[in-house]
Amino acid sequence: MRFVTYRTLEIEPRLGLLHAGLVVDVEYFGAAIGHDLPSTMLDFIDLGPVALRFLEESLASGTSADFVGTSLPEGNVALLAPIPRPRKNIFGIGLNYTEHVAESARSLDTSGELPQQPVIFSKPPTAVAAWNDPIGHNGRVTRQLDWETELAVVIGQTARRVAEARALDHVFGYTVINDVSARDCRRAGQWIVSKGQDSFAPMGPCIVTADEIGDPQDLTLKTRVNGVEKQNGNTRFMLFNVAQLIAEISSVMTLEPGDIIATGTPAGVGAGRDPQEFLWPGDIVECEIEKIGMLRNPVVAV
Amino acid sequence: MRFVTYRTLEIEPRLGLLHAGLVVDVEYFGAAIGHDLPSTMLDFIDLGPVALRFLEESLASGTSADFVGTSLPEGNVALLAPIPRPRKNIFGIGLNYTEHVAESARSLDTSGELPQQPVIFSKPPTAVAAWNDPIGHNGRVTRQLDWETELAVVIGQTARRVAEARALDHVFGYTVINDVSARDCRRAGQWIVSKGQDSFAPMGPCIVTADEIGDPQDLTLKTRVNGVEKQNGNTRFMLFNVAQLIAEISSVMTLEPGDIIATGTPAGVGAGRDPQEFLWPGDIVECEIEKIGMLRNPVVAV
Repeated sequence: MRFVTYRTLEIEPRLGLLHAGLVVDVEYFGAAIGHDLPSTMLDFIDLGPVALRFLEESLASGTSADFVGTSLPEGNVALLAPIPRPRKNIFGIGLNYTEHVAESARSLDTSGELPQQPVIFSKPPTAVAAWNDPIGHNGRVTRQLDWETELAVVIGQTARRVAEARALDHVFGYTVINDVSARDCRRAGQWIVSKGQDSFAPMGPCIVTADEIGDPQDLTLKTRVNGVEKQNGNTRFMLFNVAQLIAEISSVMTLEPGDIIATGTPAGVGAGRDPQEFLWPGDIVECEIEKIGMLRNPVVAV
Repeated sequence: MRFVTYRTLEIEPRLGLLHAGLVVDVEYFGAAIGHDLPSTMLDFIDLGPVALRFLEESLASGTSADFVGTSLPEGNVALLAPIPRPRKNIFGIGLNYTEHVAESARSLDTSGELPQQPVIFSKPPTAVAAWNDPIGHNGRVTRQLDWETELAVVIGQTARRVAEARALDHVFGYTVINDVSARDCRRAGQWIVSKGQDSFAPMGPCIVTADEIGDPQDLTLKTRVNGVEKQNGNTRFMLFNVAQLIAEISSVMTLEPGDIIATGTPAGVGAGRDPQEFLWPGDIVECEIEKIGMLRNPVVAV
């Protein structure tokens, strides 16, 4: 299933499900079939897998009447980030694709050696931006604004010291994050200023449930800037795969429902190109991952 | 005023105010005087300075009757962290006292040069621990568990690109944080694993409002381990003072009500001693800051 958080002109952000060209409002649909279902993504994730199965079965057996007044055509709603306000920092993983390690060593203050353990940083929840929201280019602090298309994992169930073999059981689904980075704001390893600025985590367009993704290590990732392809990689080239990342983080920090891990970017970032290319006001960035969709954001001076 | 979050055996965590040896329940006291007041610290902070002034005036003019059934003796309640669950990562500042920069250069992978800009990292909200909660010593991941007593700033009003001269207007109050650090979990600048583990942010015992603190740059900080003094510094020796830190962080990341900034530790951490000393199960750590109070936590194997 494919979940979105959406808004029309009249109403607060609400949880929707993409179904047959419609955005089905989960709470309203629940009411139509006589069940209490929540109105936000985080509240739905909290309910666990049984709610997911129930909703899937209910959609399959729903009659036309159940969808009238509970859904809108996709084009008639505005999409927000699927989790507009995470309950904590987003965990980010640096240098998690071989070729990106090499290009980073050429252009940044990183070692060319492959990390022996995941390189973990964080982005505050204020960094989240929606589909089509501006990525803020603050010319007073950066002249090196860069893109990073990344597979983002959404945790479904609390994970504390989970074994790698069981780690994927804790995943609710996947989405796309553009791990926007101001390269010149890097400070001797302190990544939060470079990566945590307001609007530096565009997310979306939807969260696709783990069952629909299948193997998270076989997804093509692409970035286009003003229509020109810049990144074209595949999650099979991650140094630490999704299961390893969950096991590693949860070995010391409890992962909770709704937590988000951005799993790193493949080669092709602007800083790694020759000559280097960066984002400027007026540019349009598109981040696309197979089976999930495309996230599009303009760059705007702030 | 001095706010706590407290719990008795029967009830959920609630917002209290230390007043004349009592913990006055803010919501219940409000009801007694005919006003709606919130039951949690974050909800109270959201109300802004007017609520603070109203509460102060109401306490001063309250009669005995207003406190009966709305307060308990301090000793009869258990204190939780004043903000048991922050809404985002805690911001931490590394290397913010001259002597600590020097001792870190001797013992860690840091430069001995003074930082030109604040060194910012983050701790997830799952790291928060209460007064007397165990600090978890996970022998599988660290043999170098260390203490760091720090003045923590609690933001009262949204701060976005605020000038240093106005920055302190955005402060609700101050508390104590022990920025517990597993030195051997440092990874080439990636501090979140070293500093973000579950229980690595004991906080408390209370939040003291900014008016009652006065100048935040004139407070003595002390650490004792098993009763022996290890740190004895003063906030006047910060490299970047509280106003500068708020201005700097808010220049790129919006600070919101309830956000917490741990402002760095003075010299005297275990890693900087000769010979080095670290925390082990059975140890007791006490972190004390003038005008705020003392935070005491045992170290326990996990």
